Amino acid sequence: MKVYGKNVFNEVKNNISSIRKVYISNNFNDKEIIKFIQDNKISYSTIDHRKMDSMVDGKHQGIIIDINEYEYVDYHNMFNDRVVLMLDHLEDPHNFGAIIRTCEAAGIKSIIIPKDRSVSVTSTVMKTSAGALSNVNIAMVNNLVRTIDDFKKEGFFAYAADMDGENYKDVSYADKVLLIIGSEGNGVGRLVKENCDQILAIPQFGHVNSLNASVAAAILIYGIVNK
Amino acid sequence: MKVYGKNVFNEVKNNISSIRKVYISNNFNDKEIIKFIQDNKISYSTIDHRKMDSMVDGKHQGIIIDINEYEYVDYHNMFNDRVVLMLDHLEDPHNFGAIIRTCEAAGIKSIIIPKDRSVSVTSTVMKTSAGALSNVNIAMVNNLVRTIDDFKKEGFFAYAADMDGENYKDVSYADKVLLIIGSEGNGVGRLVKENCDQILAIPQFGHVNSLNASVAAAILIYGIVNK
Repeated sequence: MKVYGKNVFNEVKNNISSIRKVYISNNFNDKEIIKFIQDNKISYSTIDHRKMDSMVDGKHQGIIIDINEYEYVDYHNMFNDRVVLMLDHLEDPHNFGAIIRTCEAAGIKSIIIPKDRSVSVTSTVMKTSAGALSNVNIAMVNNLVRTIDDFKKEGFFAYAADMDGENYKDVSYADKVLLIIGSEGNGVGRLVKENCDQILAIPQFGHVNSLNASVAAAILIYGIVNK
Repeated sequence: MKVYGKNVFNEVKNNISSIRKVYISNNFNDKEIIKFIQDNKISYSTIDHRKMDSMVDGKHQGIIIDINEYEYVDYHNMFNDRVVLMLDHLEDPHNFGAIIRTCEAAGIKSIIIPKDRSVSVTSTVMKTSAGALSNVNIAMVNNLVRTIDDFKKEGFFAYAADMDGENYKDVSYADKVLLIIGSEGNGVGRLVKENCDQILAIPQFGHVNSLNASVAAAILIYGIVNK
């Protein structure tokens, strides 16, 4: 997988063994990064800046990094967490990156996404998460409902975010929380909702009836972490 | 000012008198929008789809609307509000749009921005705010510190968001709140902070030390509105 940009490099360098090769533009002048690459004997090539434009779809800032595919974790390793976040078919990589960042800030270490029809860990997600991805584990699962059941068996209470539910700030949260946020367009799916213990709503007073998914996630995450 | 896209049209149509002219692509097929334009006798031209690409910098979806400049309000009209938001040199129009949307959802009707070195109401802001802009008033001021003083004279307490401050959830907020959010890079300016009554912090446990500006704004806004 090819990722790019200085911030992204400064993230992936925390896991040197994931780096296959670095491509640097012939006018790249970040001495700190070049020194890091050379000191750590990372394989790299210097190539024409314009040739790099054809390698990726965005502003590479003169550095493209070929890394191993993101390694998802097994969700069974998340059963010791206090709060786990599940994203029900989120679509926008910017929202996913922002949510990863919020999780990291709030001390949440585990996020679950479904395998199909969902955003996954792409280079845009890496970029938007601004380094937070190194401190958060992501699991990819085949079936959200079955996964929710497994968490419930481990003592978790499942809470889904939706327009019609209890005001999130009036809820007494269980000791172990599985928080489920829906997709931008459709919210949490019906079957998933039916398998949850409680529905959480953020009170909204405006005429435009939906908060941005990453904003809604942040409000609920901090609402739960604060209790 | 030229704005574009179907969602934006559906926002600006709430204020027909602000529309100077609509440009529609020759293969535009949203019958509802075309009917609205004709029923309301809005001036429009049908032009070549490719010619439209050169008129604006983004995906216009076959519709470009030439509207009057956004009309900022006078901040003296905001003194009756319970919560007013001030943005201290925010830079990113996507963040501004997301914040407008959060304000609308939370029932906050007034936002203040500075005149210089700040994001203003652009077409990107309109697009990102997804219609919420119609229900929120924006004031543009020359001097943030003087404006804060004027709000204080009217009984407001000024709260600035910063890394070093009281945990926002432990604060007993005053009846009238002026909440100040800083820029993405630099946070709230020193002089502005010195003129505030209290500094609010969002506890953060991660290694990446900053939440996205629109996420931080949402957490604080809901933290205040909920009290």
